[in-house]
Amino acid sequence: MLQNIRVVLVNTSHPGNIGGAARAMKNMGLSRLVLVDPLDFPSGEAVARASGATDILDSAQVVKTLEEALVGCSLVLGTSARDRRIPWPLLDPRECATTCLEQAGQGGEVALVFGREYAGLTNEELQRCQFHVHIPSNPDFSSLNLATAVQVLAYEVRMAWLAAQGLPTKQEKLETTAMLNAQPATMDEMELFYGHLESTLVEIGFLDPQKPRHLMSRLRRLYGRCGISKLEMNILRGILTETQKTARGESHKRGEH
Amino acid sequence: MLQNIRVVLVNTSHPGNIGGAARAMKNMGLSRLVLVDPLDFPSGEAVARASGATDILDSAQVVKTLEEALVGCSLVLGTSARDRRIPWPLLDPRECATTCLEQAGQGGEVALVFGREYAGLTNEELQRCQFHVHIPSNPDFSSLNLATAVQVLAYEVRMAWLAAQGLPTKQEKLETTAMLNAQPATMDEMELFYGHLESTLVEIGFLDPQKPRHLMSRLRRLYGRCGISKLEMNILRGILTETQKTARGESHKRGEH
Repeated sequence: MLQNIRVVLVNTSHPGNIGGAARAMKNMGLSRLVLVDPLDFPSGEAVARASGATDILDSAQVVKTLEEALVGCSLVLGTSARDRRIPWPLLDPRECATTCLEQAGQGGEVALVFGREYAGLTNEELQRCQFHVHIPSNPDFSSLNLATAVQVLAYEVRMAWLAAQGLPTKQEKLETTAMLNAQPATMDEMELFYGHLESTLVEIGFLDPQKPRHLMSRLRRLYGRCGISKLEMNILRGILTETQKTARGESHKRGEH
Repeated sequence: MLQNIRVVLVNTSHPGNIGGAARAMKNMGLSRLVLVDPLDFPSGEAVARASGATDILDSAQVVKTLEEALVGCSLVLGTSARDRRIPWPLLDPRECATTCLEQAGQGGEVALVFGREYAGLTNEELQRCQFHVHIPSNPDFSSLNLATAVQVLAYEVRMAWLAAQGLPTKQEKLETTAMLNAQPATMDEMELFYGHLESTLVEIGFLDPQKPRHLMSRLRRLYGRCGISKLEMNILRGILTETQKTARGESHKRGEH
């Protein structure tokens, strides 16, 4: 699906930005780069900034006009500063990504078009785009670096693609949580822990059973929200047992555990 | 709210990346940059790549250690490649942004920590972070440019901030959480707690300094994800102090607290 999405850079001045864009694309799993009339390409600076994404640069298509760059596309989105005299359907990067993925998922070819470093896209170029995309930036300092702007849109495309894959990010997250918590402690294990904690606090003289105040409820609130795993529970119980031995004079430094 | 969020760059080699990060921050409305032991700063290359965000560079704080960079923070998130031997709570950039905004909305100070260009953050540095953030990248080409990585997280922070601006119900939620957590413990308070915990565990013989295994990192992971408040911190420190007294035979049952 991602191979249906091309990045089009119009009239780029600095070859370093072409390299940076190539790197950002490859980081996010995009591979098709089209350069419309670049000022300086190929270039060693582009290769340096690509930092290993030279395959993207090598296979980049160089064309003379935006029209050529858009051949075969069924959806074209152009990046734009917000204020344009002609109002146009405007998407934020997240909406842009969803729209791209929908189209690419149906087999359509999609272009994300980026303008010149200082001047952006001309009004004529913008009118070739069905949608405009605006990266919501600080109104007092709104112009992003070109490669960085490519990164933001490519990142959103990847997030949408991962979501469309059946949520592997979520899946990975679940796996991490699964590893982390291995098995969560059950409620009855938590209750045994609270009982053990309470009696230990009494033994070391921190908790006065005649004047318990809110101590145990505060500790319950703390440990209750942590999502304690069985492994962590064993550690906490082990600490309590060792503390009790110390309090009873049964054990001193370096006990086995 | 955004002014409570600082970007921390650790041991950056290329000043151009510092400039690029400053530009990305300013584009997204972030302003606090902290540099831990940068290789080359101040630098003309940083100024060039900042492209007008020189105010961020001028006010950047330069410190010697990560610890200094995190003073006052109640939430620390570190960027990380996915595979680490000790699993840790892992967020994607979007979840990271929501978490940052919640904390900043309660008046907490938040740090987003970025590692070295080639080597990232060390395991020790990663263990100072409550959460790890992974930008979901192409597994075959996963390493983003530093300034670009800053851009992605800053972009998500801005998106979350813009969303929060338009949703007053969020505010109510934040206020409830604020009441609950009163004031969050800061990172330096957390470090003092870990030090106190470690020495106490040695005193009661639960932790063998010769064979520490993963005990402290597991406990850091547990307490790090709980969002400990100052009040709770006082309770935990009180328990440790009382445990130490018991271990030293200084106090028995019903000590004052």
